[in-house]
Amino acid sequence: MSEIDDLRAEVTALARRVSLLEDHLEITQLVAQYGPDVDSGSADDTAALWTEDGRFDAVGAMEMSGRHQIAGMVRSEGHQHLIANGCGHILTVPHVVVRGDEATGRGYALNIRWDADAQRFWVARVSANTWQWRRTAEGWKISGRVNANLDGTADHRQMLAPIDTPGD
Amino acid sequence: MSEIDDLRAEVTALARRVSLLEDHLEITQLVAQYGPDVDSGSADDTAALWTEDGRFDAVGAMEMSGRHQIAGMVRSEGHQHLIANGCGHILTVPHVVVRGDEATGRGYALNIRWDADAQRFWVARVSANTWQWRRTAEGWKISGRVNANLDGTADHRQMLAPIDTPGD
Amino acid sequence: MSEIDDLRAEVTALARRVSLLEDHLEITQLVAQYGPDVDSGSADDTAALWTEDGRFDAVGAMEMSGRHQIAGMVRSEGHQHLIANGCGHILTVPHVVVRGDEATGRGYALNIRWDADAQRFWVARVSANTWQWRRTAEGWKISGRVNANLDGTADHRQMLAPIDTPGD
Repeated sequence: MSEIDDLRAEVTALARRVSLLEDHLEITQLVAQYGPDVDSGSADDTAALWTEDGRFDAVGAMEMSGRHQIAGMVRSEGHQHLIANGCGHILTVPHVVVRGDEATGRGYALNIRWDADAQRFWVARVSANTWQWRRTAEGWKISGRVNANLDGTADHRQMLAPIDTPGD
Repeated sequence: MSEIDDLRAEVTALARRVSLLEDHLEITQLVAQYGPDVDSGSADDTAALWTEDGRFDAVGAMEMSGRHQIAGMVRSEGHQHLIANGCGHILTVPHVVVRGDEATGRGYALNIRWDADAQRFWVARVSANTWQWRRTAEGWKISGRVNANLDGTADHRQMLAPIDTPGD
Repeated sequence: MSEIDDLRAEVTALARRVSLLEDHLEITQLVAQYGPDVDSGSADDTAALWTEDGRFDAVGAMEMSGRHQIAGMVRSEGHQHLIANGCGHILTVPHVVVRGDEATGRGYALNIRWDADAQRFWVARVSANTWQWRRTAEGWKISGRVNANLDGTADHRQMLAPIDTPGD
C-alpha cells in the first residue's frame, strides 16, 4: 500500500506544479489579449479581461472602475479616433508573481501611432505597468492595472521596482 | 485495483494538461524565432518555421506560398538591403487558441529600421498579425500568417478582434 | 507489480516534461525582470539576475564581469541620468534552447527614450541579444549576455542566427 501512496503523493505534487504553470500561461495570455482587443475596438471583450469591479488607472488620462467604464473608454470618441488613425498598443510579457488566488506583475505598454504624412509611426507612450490579477470562477482576471508614462516622473519608474516575494 | 485505476486516470488527465502547456510553449517559441531568423538572413531556417505548403501574406507587399517562396523573400535583394542597413523585426507573444492539432493567434509585428544619419531608429511598421499553426510530424509549424500594417485601414485592425472559442 | 511500475515510469517521464516547462518559464521570467529592474534603478536586483561571475557585454559601450560591475552600471551617472529623463528597456521573449543545466537564447532589446521637447519617445537602440543561462543553487541565472545594436554591423545581426541544436 505504501508504494501506491508514495506515487499518489508524487502525482499530487506534480499536479500543483502544473497548476502554477497554467496560472502563468493564463495570466500572460490575458495580457496578450489587451492590445488586440483595444486596437480592434472590441469594447466588451476588453472589459471582460477585468474582474467585475476591476480598476484601470491610466495615469494622467483617466481612472476607470468596473467593466462598464473600461468598455466605455474603448467606445469613447478619443479611442475610436486613435484606432481609426492607426495605432498599436504593444504590451510586454510582465514579470509575474503568483500567490494563491492573487498575482501581481510589472512590465511595459507601448502606444505607437501612425503618421500618414510622414508614412511612419511615432512612439507616443512607453509606460510602466503594474498589474494585479485575481482567480475567479471565470478564471484569472485583471483586478487592477496602473499605466504611467516613463517621462522622467520618479513615481512612474518606481512602479517597476521588484515585487517583494515571501521570504525577501 | 480501483485505486491504481483512479491514479492512472489522474496521470492521464495531468499528461493532457502538460501537453497543452507544451503546445503553447512550442507555438510561442516558433514566433520567437521569426525575427532572429529573418534579421540574420537565415533563409532556410525561416522557411522551416512554416509547413511545406504554409502561406505568408505580407499585405501590400507580397503573398508567399510554400517554403521556397518564403526562403526567397529572405534571400531577396529587398530584404538583404534592409538588414544590411540595420533592421529589427520585433514580434509580440500572441494570444493563442489551441484546438487539437490546429491553433490560431493574433498579435503584432514591429519593423524598426536604423537611420545612420539621425543615429536613431524609426518605426516603419506596426502590423496586426493573425496566425494559423498546425501540428505536424516535425512539431508545430506555421500554416498561415497575415501581416497587415495598422495604418488606419479598417480591415487590418479588424484582424485583431477576438478569436471565437468553442462555446462562445 | 508491473502495473505500478509502469505508472511510476509514466509519472517520472511526466515530471521531466514539467521540469523543462518550468525551466522555460523561469528563464523567460528572468529576462522579463531585466527591464523593470534597470528602469527603476534597482542595482542589486539587476545584478542578482546574473550568476556571481556572470558577464554582460554591452557592445560599444562597456563590458561587465560579475555582479559588482553590473550593479555599478545601474548606479552609474550615465544610467541614472538616462532613467531620470525617461527611458524604457523593452526586451522580447527570446528563443530559448535548454540543455540540462545550461541554456542559450537569442532575442532583442529596445532602448526607447523620452524627448520632453517633442513630447514623444525616440528609439535609441534595437539590439540583437544573445543569452547564456546556468542552473544554480539559487535557480536559473544569466551567465552571459551580449547586447549589440542592429545598426548594419554584420557581426551584430549574425548573433541572431539559429542556435545549433543537438542532431542538427
